Amino acid sequence: MAWKAGAAGGMVAGVREGAMKVTILGGGGFLGRKLAARLAADGALGGKPVEELTLFDLSPPAAPEGAGFPVRCVGGDVSDASAMSEAVPEKTSVVFHLAAVVSAAAEADFDLGMRVNLDGTRALVERCRALPAAPRVVFTSSVASFSGGQEAVLADDARQVPANSYGAQKAMGEMLLADATRKGFLDAVCIRLPTVIVRPGRPNKAASSFVSAILREPLLGLETTYPVGEEFGVWVCSPRVAVEWFVHAATMETAALGLDRGVNPPGRRVTVAEMLAALPGNARGLVRPQPDPAIEAIVSGWPAAFTAERARRLGFSETPGLDVILRGFVEDDLEATRAERAA
Amino acid sequence: MAWKAGAAGGMVAGVREGAMKVTILGGGGFLGRKLAARLAADGALGGKPVEELTLFDLSPPAAPEGAGFPVRCVGGDVSDASAMSEAVPEKTSVVFHLAAVVSAAAEADFDLGMRVNLDGTRALVERCRALPAAPRVVFTSSVASFSGGQEAVLADDARQVPANSYGAQKAMGEMLLADATRKGFLDAVCIRLPTVIVRPGRPNKAASSFVSAILREPLLGLETTYPVGEEFGVWVCSPRVAVEWFVHAATMETAALGLDRGVNPPGRRVTVAEMLAALPGNARGLVRPQPDPAIEAIVSGWPAAFTAERARRLGFSETPGLDVILRGFVEDDLEATRAERAA
Repeated sequence: MAWKAGAAGGMVAGVREGAMKVTILGGGGFLGRKLAARLAADGALGGKPVEELTLFDLSPPAAPEGAGFPVRCVGGDVSDASAMSEAVPEKTSVVFHLAAVVSAAAEADFDLGMRVNLDGTRALVERCRALPAAPRVVFTSSVASFSGGQEAVLADDARQVPANSYGAQKAMGEMLLADATRKGFLDAVCIRLPTVIVRPGRPNKAASSFVSAILREPLLGLETTYPVGEEFGVWVCSPRVAVEWFVHAATMETAALGLDRGVNPPGRRVTVAEMLAALPGNARGLVRPQPDPAIEAIVSGWPAAFTAERARRLGFSETPGLDVILRGFVEDDLEATRAERAA
Repeated sequence: MAWKAGAAGGMVAGVREGAMKVTILGGGGFLGRKLAARLAADGALGGKPVEELTLFDLSPPAAPEGAGFPVRCVGGDVSDASAMSEAVPEKTSVVFHLAAVVSAAAEADFDLGMRVNLDGTRALVERCRALPAAPRVVFTSSVASFSGGQEAVLADDARQVPANSYGAQKAMGEMLLADATRKGFLDAVCIRLPTVIVRPGRPNKAASSFVSAILREPLLGLETTYPVGEEFGVWVCSPRVAVEWFVHAATMETAALGLDRGVNPPGRRVTVAEMLAALPGNARGLVRPQPDPAIEAIVSGWPAAFTAERARRLGFSETPGLDVILRGFVEDDLEATRAERAA
């Protein structure tokens, strides 16, 4: 493990009143890095200054630019109790638990998925239980924990019947965190994230890869294909709104949640046709259909719409339209993605 | 561990065509013993002869009377991989997984509940995965995995929002078994048992203790009390119908279950007033109200009714009326309970 001071000059002189220690498990991932950058930019969470940030991932993640507080960068296995103790120091107020083996990997390697996605969450529960005060835990669950298909519009009390190990492990993690909340070990909010677009990086073997690729690749000037019909719908959110949700979940009043700690946030249903239409004209010509019945069979089981009424009542913000999502990608990630792909 | 031959003379001379090995985890418990006795009486399961029965519990359970097949009686910890290998031998066709730390104990000792109720189920999954052919697994989940209260009538797709660790651990077990089924490691049917009446034995500290006590104690000639109003409703079944459900779940076609391996069987909603009315007149006088707001607060969160439509479609039999339930207790358990209580 490694320690790094905040990059900015503003090292804190001591613990300020109401200051808080924050941990991001999975701090090296796509969303973890964006959340760390947001905390560095704000210097605070819910009006309270951040006293110290711990970023935890398999390898010690890079500290965000410009943090006015110390940043501890820790590497380790999330299912290992001693690594978890390093990741969540004494007096931690908020843990963002974003560490996961994602869907395709958890499906290919059942043991790895169980270890990281279930045992990792269990190790976090045990660590929180050993702390003198129960921290808020913001857990990223997933729409992959549901099934239902294209025609379904899932209500807030919809049953999770996952069709993949990743979704099953996330749903078990939610169940464990809800019970740990009831027992007073921690105070959990579980956010069932929609498909996040536009994901930077390369196309991969995930069945959902095309959803980001259909927007990202043509903006990079590259050709791409989509394996489903143009009317195919997906429940999406943007990286920016996901980070908003994380911050809201970390700072909201949780009494109104009662026993049910899972939230379906207000994503947005978009179709392939709408995504194509949102691309600038020159980019749109780089995308063509290439039907793939195997991929269609998988993704057609995913629910494409949720009512998300409870989350709206609880103050979770709306996912903007595709034009705003695309602009966000261009502003935040396009250049870095281009540079990475060229390297 | 111990080996015992079947008590009857009919030792099998070898493996008969289509014969099956059966295991009961929790074979020493109230329902495990009744199920073992049923298998011994039938000599078969779903029309196929039982070739060997393994009873597994913390201590080696007693073999049932009159079994025409060998009975292995094994003691061990359900969460221990090597004990599980003893409990589920090669070529096992059916595992009844009834082993559990019950609600009051799992609430008092979180670690014990996690170990037995979750890790035990996980150890079973790992054992089944190592077998050459996926066995049928019949898992006893519980209505304690739901909340909703007296007014709720839960549909088959009702979300499990447990208000106790036992229910949370059972719901996690169901989720794991459903995913293990999808992966082809085993073939699970999870039965969410109602409160089973009349439970033999003594009143205990479980919040539900009064539901059986209100019937059992006066039939033993003993006084007892109930902590709730007479209009209070409970979702119940009998030991006999529970065993019917286990046998049906072990032998039914499971293709119709799809991804959802949990079944709400057709229990019956009964009120305290109905239970009192079912008692013979001389017994009824031994029961009196003694309001207990602490117990009422717990039990009033339990759902008292389910539609159970899917289970009926799948061929699970109906819970009979209270008169039949009472008669079953008198025929099956009253004398043994009286003798046990006198000892």
